[in-house]
Amino acid sequence: MTNIAFIGLGNMGGPMAANLLKSGMQVTVFDLVEASVNALVEQGAKAATSAVDAVADAEVVVTMLPAAAHVKSLYLGDNGIIEASRDDVLFIDSSTIDADSARVVGKAVEQAGRLFVDAPVSGGVAGAKAGTLTFIMGGSVDGVAKATPVLQCMGKNLFHAGDTGAGQIAKICNNMLLAVLMSGTSEALQLAIDNGLDPKVMSDIMLQSSGCNWTLQKYNPCPGVMEDVPSSNDYQGGFMVKLMNKDLNLAMNAAANSESSTPMAAAAQGLYKLHQRNGNGDKDFSSIFTLFAKD
Amino acid sequence: MTNIAFIGLGNMGGPMAANLLKSGMQVTVFDLVEASVNALVEQGAKAATSAVDAVADAEVVVTMLPAAAHVKSLYLGDNGIIEASRDDVLFIDSSTIDADSARVVGKAVEQAGRLFVDAPVSGGVAGAKAGTLTFIMGGSVDGVAKATPVLQCMGKNLFHAGDTGAGQIAKICNNMLLAVLMSGTSEALQLAIDNGLDPKVMSDIMLQSSGCNWTLQKYNPCPGVMEDVPSSNDYQGGFMVKLMNKDLNLAMNAAANSESSTPMAAAAQGLYKLHQRNGNGDKDFSSIFTLFAKD
Amino acid sequence: MTNIAFIGLGNMGGPMAANLLKSGMQVTVFDLVEASVNALVEQGAKAATSAVDAVADAEVVVTMLPAAAHVKSLYLGDNGIIEASRDDVLFIDSSTIDADSARVVGKAVEQAGRLFVDAPVSGGVAGAKAGTLTFIMGGSVDGVAKATPVLQCMGKNLFHAGDTGAGQIAKICNNMLLAVLMSGTSEALQLAIDNGLDPKVMSDIMLQSSGCNWTLQKYNPCPGVMEDVPSSNDYQGGFMVKLMNKDLNLAMNAAANSESSTPMAAAAQGLYKLHQRNGNGDKDFSSIFTLFAKD
Amino acid sequence: MTNIAFIGLGNMGGPMAANLLKSGMQVTVFDLVEASVNALVEQGAKAATSAVDAVADAEVVVTMLPAAAHVKSLYLGDNGIIEASRDDVLFIDSSTIDADSARVVGKAVEQAGRLFVDAPVSGGVAGAKAGTLTFIMGGSVDGVAKATPVLQCMGKNLFHAGDTGAGQIAKICNNMLLAVLMSGTSEALQLAIDNGLDPKVMSDIMLQSSGCNWTLQKYNPCPGVMEDVPSSNDYQGGFMVKLMNKDLNLAMNAAANSESSTPMAAAAQGLYKLHQRNGNGDKDFSSIFTLFAKD
Repeated sequence: MTNIAFIGLGNMGGPMAANLLKSGMQVTVFDLVEASVNALVEQGAKAATSAVDAVADAEVVVTMLPAAAHVKSLYLGDNGIIEASRDDVLFIDSSTIDADSARVVGKAVEQAGRLFVDAPVSGGVAGAKAGTLTFIMGGSVDGVAKATPVLQCMGKNLFHAGDTGAGQIAKICNNMLLAVLMSGTSEALQLAIDNGLDPKVMSDIMLQSSGCNWTLQKYNPCPGVMEDVPSSNDYQGGFMVKLMNKDLNLAMNAAANSESSTPMAAAAQGLYKLHQRNGNGDKDFSSIFTLFAKD
Repeated sequence: MTNIAFIGLGNMGGPMAANLLKSGMQVTVFDLVEASVNALVEQGAKAATSAVDAVADAEVVVTMLPAAAHVKSLYLGDNGIIEASRDDVLFIDSSTIDADSARVVGKAVEQAGRLFVDAPVSGGVAGAKAGTLTFIMGGSVDGVAKATPVLQCMGKNLFHAGDTGAGQIAKICNNMLLAVLMSGTSEALQLAIDNGLDPKVMSDIMLQSSGCNWTLQKYNPCPGVMEDVPSSNDYQGGFMVKLMNKDLNLAMNAAANSESSTPMAAAAQGLYKLHQRNGNGDKDFSSIFTLFAKD
Repeated sequence: MTNIAFIGLGNMGGPMAANLLKSGMQVTVFDLVEASVNALVEQGAKAATSAVDAVADAEVVVTMLPAAAHVKSLYLGDNGIIEASRDDVLFIDSSTIDADSARVVGKAVEQAGRLFVDAPVSGGVAGAKAGTLTFIMGGSVDGVAKATPVLQCMGKNLFHAGDTGAGQIAKICNNMLLAVLMSGTSEALQLAIDNGLDPKVMSDIMLQSSGCNWTLQKYNPCPGVMEDVPSSNDYQGGFMVKLMNKDLNLAMNAAANSESSTPMAAAAQGLYKLHQRNGNGDKDFSSIFTLFAKD
Repeated sequence: MTNIAFIGLGNMGGPMAANLLKSGMQVTVFDLVEASVNALVEQGAKAATSAVDAVADAEVVVTMLPAAAHVKSLYLGDNGIIEASRDDVLFIDSSTIDADSARVVGKAVEQAGRLFVDAPVSGGVAGAKAGTLTFIMGGSVDGVAKATPVLQCMGKNLFHAGDTGAGQIAKICNNMLLAVLMSGTSEALQLAIDNGLDPKVMSDIMLQSSGCNWTLQKYNPCPGVMEDVPSSNDYQGGFMVKLMNKDLNLAMNAAANSESSTPMAAAAQGLYKLHQRNGNGDKDFSSIFTLFAKD
């Protein structure tokens, strides 16, 4: 039974920590919101009084925070968790942040002789609850080997993308492409509709042709084509437009740093930002389909 | 044994007509290039002296021509093939042309009491030779029913997209989306490479994630990731950049006519045109990957 | 006193013909709408019973029609006006059409030994009434020389862009760039506003810097910055979004024919089409500013 | 005679400090590169041994550094220049950095009871030498009033854009629009050329029409149209592509922070990044014209 510290019990972190408990792990939790801590204590977790307190005896520390500033402050701040931790600890940061920040934190951890893995997730709150998240890991072979059994308690698909920071890069490359797929598929379906075709028939044809992509397979953006997807539920649930925009900003920053040209993602970002401006930030990201529809 | 007339024996039409012969059909052929006619005669076809002569006894007429102007001239010109044909004939036009032209021709055929199906293909010369083309049909249920056994001699996947012209629309919507998928996947892979990731690892991750699409499944644009695709053969063979640009022009024209907004395809078109300008018109369309690579 | 035939008396053609009369020209008019003809007769024009009748004695024929199909039918149709005209006639087509159609018509006129100039206009209905239109001419030096005194009765700025068709090309290149200027200026102003700047101050700075362009000089798209422009009149009047989209379609067609890459105009077109979809087709084209504003 | 400290004597800062000396100011200089300090000492400046030493007696401090990290370190670091300065000092930062960093630094200065103005420049090395720079200032009315006579020694046009940070915002909005103007004008000129028009004639027409913009007025990107511009000098000199990309990155970051949609600038950025990738980072930014030209 591994002794795990879990820091950050929000919409994602809460159910993730709960799945560790269900798998029989011993979990010490910390969050600035007391109610979040209490909810986990009721499920068998031990409450820590601070982040430093939480990591004291942990073999593995999982952190799940909103943005890079929080991660850097937690790891690198005056009361940082690195020095407070055991010599043989593994830190897993599952926050979605920029790769540079992940590398800075990872380097600090490694210079202190500890292991670090960045392991951002996809799958959303539903995946966090169901324990079916995807984790994309960046780090050393040793770190990844030690992280794997822990992450398997919370997720279904685990990938090792490369060195420290590579998990973040791989996640944002994937999500950047996803924005392109969703925008491109939406405009293609609307063009077909505008020319008299049935979107279900058009979707079936593209599914079996070279236009095939994940959005047609799992997440058709046109209402009525698939059941049990956000487009058939008024674009509620799923992955919010504002979160897609957050990921697109991370992707554009990464592209700026590496002087990479990403014109297709830039076009998609322009559309997603217009869409958020129009008051759709909290809708599922497949609602970009409505941007192309006739009034 | 159906009596078929085949008009237009180019790179695509030639092997298509040959497959009809292999399936035991009786095929009368016509082309302005005598050598093309002779090649089919050697395989068992009967030579006609003109298009009008070719259609005289045909139960089904298949036309495969380079562009809309040729199709309109053949069907609607002074010596048009409609009046020269049998009352119960079915015309199948497999040329890739704009939907409006297809509708004009289809209407003329139907006003003469004959059946018409537009059935553009995908799959390229290789698919034409192997008899594994995809046909996307537009037309009446009767027309499609009669066309199906004929097209099955030349293709593997048959779709019925809708009324006359719908085959053309569905094909260009699919190919328009394909241009977006290929451009978007290429820039995502290059961004990953620029940030130190292995393109094969990145491809594997996206294949199992929400970035999954046909280009990663069948046609990875990054050299060395997949075998037996154009990217691993110096971008030779496959679907040429200039043909993708032709299809994108058709898509943009359709969008102009229906007042549809297609910003993602427009961005892809801008890139494909730059790429063709740089001397890559005859390369496979996955070579757009090289546009994003560092010199 | 030159004897002029004027065919096409719509919103633009009507006031243009009136200005010829005011300049003392002898004008014979024709339009399918009888009321339009009568309005000009009241101002001193002579009514013709047909287009062929109108051109019979004319030294100069001016045509002003909605689209290429009308122009081709008038010049090249069964009762074409070319053969009905005097040997020494000059035809001026002021319709905005694609350059290829202009060249086809111009060639037919020249093969009949007559002169032809394509001379599309800008300046809108207000310019037509005030006689301040801009004419961009394509044609021979002789044709342009003969057209100049006639066009000066209706316009203020006359340009000679090149050979037949060059007038059309120059006009759509200019208008294509205008769409880019207006979209780009709008998003820059909104970015400034979103960051707390006053749009008037920002406009003044850019006017005196490298961001200076016609939209800031004459046609600021942000309400309240300039008086007497559409943006300060609820985007009424001016140059309608749907007409900008028509010109962008012509530009994209020209680019397709010459295999030119126009990614900036393609991005602008995507935005203008979204804007028209949202019900803004009849608003002034500077209303694209509202696409970027916060709800 | 004002006592001025000048920190940062690079390609821009060196000639700027020299112009202060020429105007009769008493200037104390500091730079990490000793040779740069010596060059100014030869022109009459006093050398300081450190930044803190430089500011000790200054009434006005001008800082001109490469990036935000340097500015923040200089102002906010352990040996920050704020506390070392006189109570009545004015700090002018002429570095081009992100507005958020400018606001953070400005706030620290103001909390210490001093005045701060951000005043990024445009005009390049040539303008720095000639004393013809443009300064776009952000800050209080008092700060701007005090900065004005100092900046007038180094520049010709001074603007007050708004509160602290507004100078940076205004500069990047202008330069973002400039990237759009240059890309859009280039593709319009090339489209005209591809259709047989003379680029000089096309430029003249657009200069007098609604396509008029700064790039046509001062900086035509097509070789041979204007003399004494980079396009007629193999794109040497001027404003380098890599600097335009730096400014576009700043603009995109600002847009991300304010959730603004800037699709036109995003399209231009895609093109400028492709252009830099192709080995053109050190060329003048008008060389984007060559991206559209036929091989």
